[in-house]
This record gives sequence, C-alpha cells and structure tokens, in this order.
Amino acid sequence: MSASPRRLLRVAYDGADFAGWQLQADRATVQGELERALGGILGEPVRVQGAGRTDAGVHALAQAAHFDDPRGLPLARLRGALNAALPASIRVLHADHVPADFHALHDACRKTYAYQLHLSREPGGQRAVEHSVPPERRRHFHAVRADLDLLAMRRAAALLEGRHDFTVLSKAMPAGRSTLKHLGRVRVLRIPRGLRLVFHGEGFLYGMVRLASGLLVEVGRGRRRADDVPDLLASRDRAQAPASLPAHGLFLCRVDYPPERLPDAASRVDACYPDRT
Amino acid sequence: MSASPRRLLRVAYDGADFAGWQLQADRATVQGELERALGGILGEPVRVQGAGRTDAGVHALAQAAHFDDPRGLPLARLRGALNAALPASIRVLHADHVPADFHALHDACRKTYAYQLHLSREPGGQRAVEHSVPPERRRHFHAVRADLDLLAMRRAAALLEGRHDFTVLSKAMPAGRSTLKHLGRVRVLRIPRGLRLVFHGEGFLYGMVRLASGLLVEVGRGRRRADDVPDLLASRDRAQAPASLPAHGLFLCRVDYPPERLPDAASRVDACYPDRT
Repeated sequence: MSASPRRLLRVAYDGADFAGWQLQADRATVQGELERALGGILGEPVRVQGAGRTDAGVHALAQAAHFDDPRGLPLARLRGALNAALPASIRVLHADHVPADFHALHDACRKTYAYQLHLSREPGGQRAVEHSVPPERRRHFHAVRADLDLLAMRRAAALLEGRHDFTVLSKAMPAGRSTLKHLGRVRVLRIPRGLRLVFHGEGFLYGMVRLASGLLVEVGRGRRRADDVPDLLASRDRAQAPASLPAHGLFLCRVDYPPERLPDAASRVDACYPDRT
Repeated sequence: MSASPRRLLRVAYDGADFAGWQLQADRATVQGELERALGGILGEPVRVQGAGRTDAGVHALAQAAHFDDPRGLPLARLRGALNAALPASIRVLHADHVPADFHALHDACRKTYAYQLHLSREPGGQRAVEHSVPPERRRHFHAVRADLDLLAMRRAAALLEGRHDFTVLSKAMPAGRSTLKHLGRVRVLRIPRGLRLVFHGEGFLYGMVRLASGLLVEVGRGRRRADDVPDLLASRDRAQAPASLPAHGLFLCRVDYPPERLPDAASRVDACYPDRT
C-alpha cells in the first residue's frame, strides 16, 4: 500500500476565516490554504480534492480530502509540517495512506452535518435575540427564541428522513444533477441552552442543511405544520422554501468511507463532535 | 428600592478582544467599552466599578459590575440599549436594582474561575501539542499532553484548599496587601478531550488562578509531587513558583454576593458555565 502516493486528510477548520472550501483566485479558502501549505512542503504544485465544498462561513470538525505525495513523507511528519504551515484556524487531524484510485468525493458514502441553535429567552424580535448571544457562542451558534415546539420539530425531522426529491430544500443546482437524495437520521438534540440539529445522509444538495434547519425552526415556531412537510417536498417549488439559516451555525462533522476503501487507515477518526454529542 | 440609582450588571466577554477589564487610556478594555456605551445611553460620563480586574485575554462568563443610573431607565431597556451599543464580544446578561451603597468589589463574597485544558495525544513537544488544538477550541483552551496523572492533580488540588499564604502562587502584589486567602473547593473535572480546573474562593491574588493551574499541570506531569504542595506554599518563595498558564484558557465564571445585599435582584444568574459543568 505504501506504493500508492495518495493520502487522505481529515481537516478541521473555522469557517469564519475563509471564503468557503473551494479554491478561489483572490480570496482565502481552505482548499487554497492546504494547497499552498502542501506545495511548500513537497516543493511542487499540489492539487487537493475535498469530499465536497462547504460554503463561506461553514465550519468543519472533520472534512476529508485527498492529494498525492510522490515523495512519500512519513504521515506524522507530513501532518506536523502541515499544522506548522497552516493558519491556526485550519488543523489537520489525521493523515492516512489510501489506494491510488481513492477519491475523497466519489468514495464518500455518508456525511454528517450539525446545525447549532442558541435558545434565547430574550424578549423582543430577532435582533434583540441575536444581541443576547453569549460571546463564547457567537461564532458557532445561530440564535432563536427559546419557545420552540420540540415535538413538532422532531415529527418534521422524521418526515424528512428517507428518499425524497429535495428540490425545495436546495439552492439552484447545475442542470442535469439529480435532486433525489436519501436522507438518513435527522435528530433534534437538546444541548445546554440550545439545540443541535444533526443530519446524516449519503449526500446533500447545495444549501440543503441550512434550508432543512430553517424548515425545522419554522415548524418549531408554529409557522408551518410538521404534517405539511411531505406536501412541501412533493411540490418541488422553491417559492415555498423556508428561510435558510446563516452559515456560522453549520458544521460538517464527519465524512465516512467504506472500510474496504481504507485498507491502511491507521486510526479511526473519533475526533468528531468535540463536546457535541 | 427604585429610589436607588445603583445597578448591578452581569457581563460576559471574550477576553481576546480586549486589553483586560480595567480602563486604559489608549487600548480597548471591557470597563472602557461599558463606560463608553453607558455614557452614550445616559448622556453623561459614567463610572463602572467591576468585581475585580481580569487580565488581558481572560474571558468572563459572568463578571459583575455596578454603576449609577440617575435617569432610572427600566432594566430591560437599559440592557437592550447596552447590548445594541456594545461590541458582540461583550454581552450584558442581567441588570438588577441594588442598594445605593452596594459595591461590586467590596460586597463580593465568592468568585469562581475555571481554567480549560485541551488534552492532546500529539507526540512531540509543547509546540506540536499547541499545533494540534482543534480550531473551535483555540480561543478557550490551553493545550497540554494527554498523559497527566489525574489522581496526583486531585491530591494537589485538595492541598490547595483552605486558608494559606498564597505568595508563591501570585504575581507581585502592592505593598501592604495581604497574601492570605481562603481557597474553597478546587476541582479537576474531566470534559471531552480535556480538563476543567475549577477554583472557588472568597478572593484571589493577582495571577493566582493561572499559577495554581500551572502547578496542577506540573504535578500531573510528574514534575512536582502533590505532597510537596504544603512546603511550596509555606516557602513563600516566588523563585519556586510554577510556570503560569496563558490567559486564553481562563474564565471568570461567576461572582456571588450575600442575598441580603441583593434584595431586589429579579433573577438569579444561572447563565454561568454554559456547556461547562
């Protein structure tokens, strides 16, 4: 296996510092920072392939990405050099040997996202609610009024699970891309003074988690009925879409691969959900 | 009671954005920001008295401070106006009416601090360990190697409790200030991939929590013996002091007052320790 130059990285980042994952010519992105750091370490241009894009402001606890290292640096040295070269808001958690035809995007079989809500008891409108967010939460939580109907949210979450056309919970997709997706478990978890909405799925459409989170909040507020979720999905009409929630509450928590595609993975990534489950 | 113009604020802040609590002519401080915001709201200069200083970089979940409002604004309006005027890294959690002779510093009977340690499994020295801190923890945790002896740390923590001369765990104090303090419970709590060192006390000397936390880490690493703590305190010799830990892991969690000094406090502050106990 050490004949393969391909490496799989597990990468955490604070989305606030970057214009998203994907390389852009004139703005700092996570892919761009990784390619710059790897280029410096390996002495040649390096292309990094992520398991998917994250939007500007979205965080990752363990994004996945592959690249090729023709020099075959020892993994610990590679990771140490990367973390020394990268900004502190990007950390490489793990590096693994993978087969030469491994592909971080195409081989991914499951992703987990979490959306964090701070529940505020502040009276007044959304602005007053946002003004009430404790400083240590302001980068990682979206604030909403605390009077949400959790049972209704959980009913709606259950109705999102399964195979559906998620057009209404997506931003415009490139022509020809399927809008059918299989959503696994959707959980509405209580955390101290907040909620964590957790989405498991084989794949997600653009903007899907933030729109689905917005839908659950609207149900929690009584602005929509949970029982209307099937009709909403069936409508495929974006004019009926819920309001999307802001990027800074969203975390890409983990990316899973079939074990047979990771025959030499030295360690399972158990760094996901720090403090979060 | 509404005849008294005095108000007690409970204030959370992110220490990274400020040169500490105390007013400085040319740098942003928490007291300075509060006085600026209150001056704008009340239309006259306002002096804010904190329950104590926090150093540059130290965070607060609920610092306490008093000031006088001769206009007698309703508390909810006062708090709303403050949170609209303050930077997002300072939030006023509560405002209460207090007697005209209430004093945030002199009436405080108990404070609670917490020092947060991220436990890293990274091989290598302290620099590699610091390079391993996940982005979402880097502002609020100090990183140490995971192989700490918790039992020894807890033995040392118990030996710190009670009435002692804490000269060796303090920065130089102004002449004439007593170095005798009564330390209440000192706890070494496990949290996911980390430890939280919690200190309760009637009062603390300058730098005391960061030095005491440094002492506990040195004991955990086997560099000092827990049983040597009494002799260390008795020595009163700062040359034997442990290394102080950096500011960004430290939180002032709460300040308590005798109930009879808060006859009109509308609400208990239960916002302390968010996600932290």
